Amino acid sequence: MTQVTCDLGISLDGLSAGVNQSLDQPFGDGVGDGEQLHAWMFEHAADHQAELAAITAAGAFVMGRHMFTPGRGAWDLAWRGWWGEDPPYHAPVFVLTHHEREPLPMSGGTTFHFVTGGVSEALRQAREAAGDRDVAVAGGATTINQFLAADLIDELRLHVAPVVLGVEGVRLFDGVGPRRLRTVSARATPEVTHLVLRR
Amino acid sequence: MTQVTCDLGISLDGLSAGVNQSLDQPFGDGVGDGEQLHAWMFEHAADHQAELAAITAAGAFVMGRHMFTPGRGAWDLAWRGWWGEDPPYHAPVFVLTHHEREPLPMSGGTTFHFVTGGVSEALRQAREAAGDRDVAVAGGATTINQFLAADLIDELRLHVAPVVLGVEGVRLFDGVGPRRLRTVSARATPEVTHLVLRR
Repeated sequence: MTQVTCDLGISLDGLSAGVNQSLDQPFGDGVGDGEQLHAWMFEHAADHQAELAAITAAGAFVMGRHMFTPGRGAWDLAWRGWWGEDPPYHAPVFVLTHHEREPLPMSGGTTFHFVTGGVSEALRQAREAAGDRDVAVAGGATTINQFLAADLIDELRLHVAPVVLGVEGVRLFDGVGPRRLRTVSARATPEVTHLVLRR
Repeated sequence: MTQVTCDLGISLDGLSAGVNQSLDQPFGDGVGDGEQLHAWMFEHAADHQAELAAITAAGAFVMGRHMFTPGRGAWDLAWRGWWGEDPPYHAPVFVLTHHEREPLPMSGGTTFHFVTGGVSEALRQAREAAGDRDVAVAGGATTINQFLAADLIDELRLHVAPVVLGVEGVRLFDGVGPRRLRTVSARATPEVTHLVLRR
């Protein structure tokens, strides 16, 4: 049975980004380039190979519009995502949006598809594309909260940086409502705790 | 060197209690008797003996007024705390309050002292009472946030239940501001993750 997974890097205060995300500060006010949250990925990658591999192991991905672009409103068609010409997904990525756009094929097997039918339609298309592989909800927190509220995530993998951001932002679990999960595992290094939960 | 420790049971959304704590619902609206947060302590104690022992290992404790009593305003002198005649502290406990009250000796070595001089005065008295043992900040979250904001906690031990409470309440780290800690360890069982952080 394929499952829906979700990886998210968060702070101790439950934030993955601040407000006012833009090209200059993709993680928003007070979080900037996200270095405090993601140092484990970039500075200590060798210590976290299994967790890093798992993040992009799915057969298809779903992400929110604002994870794909800092823009709002109609598409700037010159924008091809944050990840350069060979994004790390190497699989179809379904981007939730209110604005239609043609599919955007990138190098390395990633194609961004733009879905205007909402969460369940994006998930349906992602499941179909993934075949017998998992579907991953790639973020951001607003999108993840929508999936959590609809009980659509089987395995939630949080990467908790030992920092308090102390800024305004979208908090994981905001608006999700009472839920009871099960802890699968936790693994700590000085710079991150990998916490795996299941529905 | 003695240190200041702090243990707190929280939900995935960072809450240790809801609003409107009272005798009928000591953990407040939507959290009631706190069973979702504290099942690991009561139903699975044998799996968590080291963590449970550490919670009450200090030589003195500091707690907020509302952890000692659900009341507000002047003291109801008939109130002797939540813990019966032999509280689990077995050491002096310094209760932060705006209302003076004589010390309250209990069985088993616990004496509640009521401190009107604020956080730093309570900590000073607790350090003196603890001698060469640690001082523990026992809660609640508002008091812990005051200590965190003043950088007074050396070791923060979070016991994260795999539940989203999804209620209004005091959130750990609210108002503390940006902080960078270090992860010491994490240990998970299905019902809780013990996460240890240091300043």
